Amino acid sequence: MSISFRILGKAGGDNALLVQIDSGQTIERLLFDCGEGCLSDVPFADVQAIDHLFFSHLHMDHVSGFDSFFRCTFNRPTKPNRIWGPPETARILQHRFQGFLWNLHEELSASWLVSDIHPGEIRTTGFEAREAFAISHDRGTQPYDRIILEGAGYSMEAITMDHRTPTLAYVVREKPRRNIDTSRLASLGLRPGAWLKELKDSANSSDSVVVDGVARSKEELRKELLVETPGDSIAYLTDFVLDEPAIERLTDALRGCRVMVCEGQYRHSDLDLARKHFHMTTVLSATVAKRARVEELILFHVSCRYESSEWVEMLREASQVFPNVHYPPEWNLKL
Amino acid sequence: MSISFRILGKAGGDNALLVQIDSGQTIERLLFDCGEGCLSDVPFADVQAIDHLFFSHLHMDHVSGFDSFFRCTFNRPTKPNRIWGPPETARILQHRFQGFLWNLHEELSASWLVSDIHPGEIRTTGFEAREAFAISHDRGTQPYDRIILEGAGYSMEAITMDHRTPTLAYVVREKPRRNIDTSRLASLGLRPGAWLKELKDSANSSDSVVVDGVARSKEELRKELLVETPGDSIAYLTDFVLDEPAIERLTDALRGCRVMVCEGQYRHSDLDLARKHFHMTTVLSATVAKRARVEELILFHVSCRYESSEWVEMLREASQVFPNVHYPPEWNLKL
Repeated sequence: MSISFRILGKAGGDNALLVQIDSGQTIERLLFDCGEGCLSDVPFADVQAIDHLFFSHLHMDHVSGFDSFFRCTFNRPTKPNRIWGPPETARILQHRFQGFLWNLHEELSASWLVSDIHPGEIRTTGFEAREAFAISHDRGTQPYDRIILEGAGYSMEAITMDHRTPTLAYVVREKPRRNIDTSRLASLGLRPGAWLKELKDSANSSDSVVVDGVARSKEELRKELLVETPGDSIAYLTDFVLDEPAIERLTDALRGCRVMVCEGQYRHSDLDLARKHFHMTTVLSATVAKRARVEELILFHVSCRYESSEWVEMLREASQVFPNVHYPPEWNLKL
Repeated sequence: MSISFRILGKAGGDNALLVQIDSGQTIERLLFDCGEGCLSDVPFADVQAIDHLFFSHLHMDHVSGFDSFFRCTFNRPTKPNRIWGPPETARILQHRFQGFLWNLHEELSASWLVSDIHPGEIRTTGFEAREAFAISHDRGTQPYDRIILEGAGYSMEAITMDHRTPTLAYVVREKPRRNIDTSRLASLGLRPGAWLKELKDSANSSDSVVVDGVARSKEELRKELLVETPGDSIAYLTDFVLDEPAIERLTDALRGCRVMVCEGQYRHSDLDLARKHFHMTTVLSATVAKRARVEELILFHVSCRYESSEWVEMLREASQVFPNVHYPPEWNLKL
């Protein structure tokens, strides 16, 4: 598995999710939401290396740490600056970009792209640091069907959910990896060499490859030698109502997903409150995990209305529905 | 003395100043600037009790903690919500107010006033939470001559300085206190009683007061019995160039001020760099303290370009100009 991740922030406080995807060639770093203080113990260089920031939505507890992110990245010319979120993200982010005094901006050079993910269509707006972020540049629209982004070795899916305002659920899936099964080489009487790289490289369009002076069919060799390993996957789900239609949509969207990071705001005895505020209980989160057949459920974004003993009780309630559930290990809240 | 204060934030990080003025009847809390993380160890209720937020200017390191402040106060209907700063503060703050998703704002009730302090004139703009802060309401202008605000038991002065953008220096002065010298009562053959309160209360317009059945002139009694104690005072100075005209203006503005909280960005050997960036060296800060004859100089907002041993050296350089100088005690950086 080459997806690693870390829940940021404390129990009962703002949280975020930092995901790192190592494709073998490159490492991509994805941040999901940006609550207050979430980046306080992430080193400056690691924040500066974040490739994409994905917002579920832009309520205070998901965006109040944005300045910490932006201070590390506002004039980053070394890589694209990309933000994604539900409709209105570009409008709100432009306010955030303009929430500082820019009196030396002519010297800046970074460009930013903010994509509003509407159902079925992505609308992207560009902002320039040298313009003090004052001008919205239309960077076009593109249709999509669940997959919003094909990244280096992964794809990103977004599903619009309902928090009385649109909220996005995200699923990151690594692409399958194809590797040579070197144990099969000997049985075919073949010696390893540079031709193996050519065999793996699907971008190379020739049909045959020369092995030990003999031209052989790539297609046949691939059937014999290449082993496909499914990629890892992780879902980020927070701040939406989990009624039956929502559970059904997520069960479908999460098919094959290994790890599910999900809100655990309320105790199940507070189900009415959860529904009123378009939030979840830990039992409902566990129900999604069970029905979507994920391997592991990590609960985060728990309400500060409860004491730590109640948080443990909420975990227990969830575990009765889906046993492989836990809080982030740093929280020290175990059954 | 009834001004207490605390420098917020760490050495080399963002800083802010929290001042508390106890007038006897009321306590007012004033926050100067709001850098990232500065409010992290100030309890929620204390942040919520802040009466005024004064910005020196709105560069990132002075405003990036604003969300932490605003989350405690955005819908505070119990007291006025007041922000002050140099020109453009209202424009920039409106962006900050709008940097969130407001989808339930119709239920909110708080009003905000943001005052842009131009030289000689204050221009105030109002914002309403129930309007999602989308509309700027002109709340008028008022001329001023140094004093921008008469608070409960104190006055606030602002002086426009030059950071290649206008920056405000602030001076808070408690009003003098008038107390009865009870030791003088006996020598005048008078017994203490309710008449003492009437004597102190200048709002009461009658010329005489009845003491032991005898009407006496208030004016004469006041001359005999009232002792005036000068109020405490504190200045907040950060992020501007200290050339000779600036030092002269500040020397005049700080006359009689007891405590001076002042930027200590650069070593004096980096004077050229300090001037280039419109900042100070600790020696220049100490020079102002000496010429303005303040009692105590507290240096803060030191550059992270230096190591802690250099910060101590910078303190030593300042102490050779003005001996009663130190860093905030929590920093543990002493000579």
